[in-house]
Amino acid sequence: MAEESSLFAPRGSTAEVEESRALAPKFDADGLLSCVATDAGSGDVLMVAHMNAQALAKTIETGEAWYFSRSRQELWRRGATSGHLQRVVEMRVDCDQDAVWIKVEQIGPGACHTGRRSCFYRAARDGGLVTLAEPVVTPGELYGKE
Amino acid sequence: MAEESSLFAPRGSTAEVEESRALAPKFDADGLLSCVATDAGSGDVLMVAHMNAQALAKTIETGEAWYFSRSRQELWRRGATSGHLQRVVEMRVDCDQDAVWIKVEQIGPGACHTGRRSCFYRAARDGGLVTLAEPVVTPGELYGKE
Repeated sequence: MAEESSLFAPRGSTAEVEESRALAPKFDADGLLSCVATDAGSGDVLMVAHMNAQALAKTIETGEAWYFSRSRQELWRRGATSGHLQRVVEMRVDCDQDAVWIKVEQIGPGACHTGRRSCFYRAARDGGLVTLAEPVVTPGELYGKE
Repeated sequence: MAEESSLFAPRGSTAEVEESRALAPKFDADGLLSCVATDAGSGDVLMVAHMNAQALAKTIETGEAWYFSRSRQELWRRGATSGHLQRVVEMRVDCDQDAVWIKVEQIGPGACHTGRRSCFYRAARDGGLVTLAEPVVTPGELYGKE
């Protein structure tokens, strides 16, 4: 991991992390930080995923969203299979630099593998969930199988 | 943890988790899920934090945001010290139910302990960070010391 951690500035004091101009991200014990992707147009939260150092570096380098899949344990270029990339319009980091917010232009109909625009298509109400959005494409159309 | 996990529906098949009306959250190996809080008015991302089962249950029960602090390893009622609570206007869950998005009414001047409105006050540009917002209150005013 020495190579990857050298992609970014070293972590300094709390004041340095919070107020300096150095990108010094804090990865957790699994080498990950949380990333929120919002639609640069509507402002809606599209998805929440994780990035390791390599995914963060590739996102900055390419201007497209890369994540790290915890279930598959692999680097994941968003849209590599579906073609529905996310172009990063702006990237923000939070106070302690353990979370990233990217405003993206979502290519294609949706960010969610279920075919919805956003992964957050259900609201919690009255002890259960209410579905607010139906798929705009089928998973088959997204991934070329079915 | 038996008591806490029984607060929610059991995890079913992928189709059940993605399409059913049952709130069946997926906590990671540390018992946590990611939570994004956005300003219900402006839509801006205010903060990203974590919830354990108890924090999620208390947030739903009280209509105010509760989190779990990884650094302090304790349940954390947002605003308990500063008085700057977050009233939950809407809660959403994502497709695999391992992330929560809450739209909140942020009481007081800001969500960030540095005194800014949002924790995401810096953008990553040209290999470094650019500060976009200055504190609107001092930490001393927030926490009653200094």
